[in-house]
Amino acid sequence: MPSADSPARLSEFSLINRYFTRPTRHTVLGVGDDGALIRPASGMELVISTDMLVAGTHFLPDTNAADLGWKTLAVNVSDMAAMGAQPRWALLAVALPGVENEATETWIAQFAQGFFACADEFGIDIIGGDTTRGPLNFCVTIFGEVPTGQALLRSGAQAGDEIWVSGQPGRAALGLAHLQGRTVLSEPALANCLAALQRPQPRVKLGLALRGLASAAIDVSDGLLADLGHVLTASGVAASLRLAVPLPPTFWDAYLAGGDDYELVFTTPASRHADIVALADALKLALTCIGIIHAGEVGRIDAVDADNQPVSLGRRGYEHFA
Amino acid sequence: MPSADSPARLSEFSLINRYFTRPTRHTVLGVGDDGALIRPASGMELVISTDMLVAGTHFLPDTNAADLGWKTLAVNVSDMAAMGAQPRWALLAVALPGVENEATETWIAQFAQGFFACADEFGIDIIGGDTTRGPLNFCVTIFGEVPTGQALLRSGAQAGDEIWVSGQPGRAALGLAHLQGRTVLSEPALANCLAALQRPQPRVKLGLALRGLASAAIDVSDGLLADLGHVLTASGVAASLRLAVPLPPTFWDAYLAGGDDYELVFTTPASRHADIVALADALKLALTCIGIIHAGEVGRIDAVDADNQPVSLGRRGYEHFA
Repeated sequence: MPSADSPARLSEFSLINRYFTRPTRHTVLGVGDDGALIRPASGMELVISTDMLVAGTHFLPDTNAADLGWKTLAVNVSDMAAMGAQPRWALLAVALPGVENEATETWIAQFAQGFFACADEFGIDIIGGDTTRGPLNFCVTIFGEVPTGQALLRSGAQAGDEIWVSGQPGRAALGLAHLQGRTVLSEPALANCLAALQRPQPRVKLGLALRGLASAAIDVSDGLLADLGHVLTASGVAASLRLAVPLPPTFWDAYLAGGDDYELVFTTPASRHADIVALADALKLALTCIGIIHAGEVGRIDAVDADNQPVSLGRRGYEHFA
Repeated sequence: MPSADSPARLSEFSLINRYFTRPTRHTVLGVGDDGALIRPASGMELVISTDMLVAGTHFLPDTNAADLGWKTLAVNVSDMAAMGAQPRWALLAVALPGVENEATETWIAQFAQGFFACADEFGIDIIGGDTTRGPLNFCVTIFGEVPTGQALLRSGAQAGDEIWVSGQPGRAALGLAHLQGRTVLSEPALANCLAALQRPQPRVKLGLALRGLASAAIDVSDGLLADLGHVLTASGVAASLRLAVPLPPTFWDAYLAGGDDYELVFTTPASRHADIVALADALKLALTCIGIIHAGEVGRIDAVDADNQPVSLGRRGYEHFA
């Protein structure tokens, strides 16, 4: 339907208005001025994080647009979960190669649909952004609230703490390997792994429940070992893992080093073991104790298998510039 | 000096640590966790804005890296100025084509030097960010504080208000035209215009002083007429300009339609005219009354020259997708 603002003439402003502006629910002033206005609740600290997603680096160019929209916000929501924060507000800056045809506009509409589906799922107001011309790039900044002093940091793990992980890391990496022809999955594992890759579920409820319970937390974006390593380094401790999860041998690399899952790895005092077991039941979410923190060489991770035999740990996860 | 983390092996993490992490001054937790933590002062609202800068769209690929670093933050600081907010915190997400050689690392170091020079100038803590591989792209998100209810919005202009502009818009556009060989400037205008283009000075002090004084404000990023147009539309009013500024005829297009200057356009009740004149004196900053707001066709701008002869207004400013 060509009109006065047909796709060929979509301006920066009408693009923002048409696809990325929706009513806000807990915001003083949303999209449309030089800045948005929010009023944080008293007694709260704001947790803030930003993530940039680039075509080719973070997602396949032919990724479904709605899935990509979901994931672009979800990976940021996951940072809030890892801090024990309630996600509340987000901004989206987008560089697009152009808006010259209807296919492009359809793609943007689908991206926005997935993006706002995630915003609605987690009660997030989209309060601003930027749209410009350039190679495809999405940059989200997200804000959450946490009571003063209660944020979950990477730096609080102590010797004797147990190490836990939610869900089953590695599913996203396996789904990607299947799509790239590097492995072959059959149902129901295939659907399960593709869902983890395409519509990751940030563990917000878990993060909120871990306030006052976990000594440290991080989300698995770079891989279980790599992200646990960040906790160890920040906390000045080491870890011994007992890899007793019943997994096919070919899945271990994905479990330990596959990124992009957005499960949480966290540590708790051993005295709270029963609380975590109860929490898993309450949340209907697998929470697995995979090892303990100790005062060894800072950052070092060693592991044994279910039979207490030493396990050699391979590559430590994905770094964009490694 | 090749070393264990020579440029060829700079990881995402060491890049952030080396160039984009500096001590913070008013932040609970800066770079290094899943999110930063800030504690907004009570009675304050947070003003938030994000801007994405792309090579080729927003800056020439051969722009001096330190200038680009300054400008990347300055254009965001300007949004705070336009809202009457005190800038306080910012995040920087960067996509870089690669960090394969020493020239690239030098470029990054210079960019960071300019970026932090601007942060220091305006008392801004850099509290987080993201570094990834991709076509060159910078995305800054900035936060400022303003007492509850005192933010300067675009929507408050009323019939009878005077329209003011700071400094001399168009200098950046003239500087760019000179660099691109579309015009020839001589000194001292050349140095003056290049400074406006390369090291824009956000009008933070002016924005703070306009709290309680201006009825509406916006910064000139797209061009004086285009940005004034946003105020008119948001406020539901029209404007009559009297273009009595003593400018060479060839400079008028830049004055009215040149973007990238980051001056402020604002409206005030006519009864405050003397206050604005006094403010210009106190800030040692030109503040020029260029017209009045009236209840005409919403968004319409007409103009007369110094002799009250009608002036035809040409193109209305730059839109990225226009």
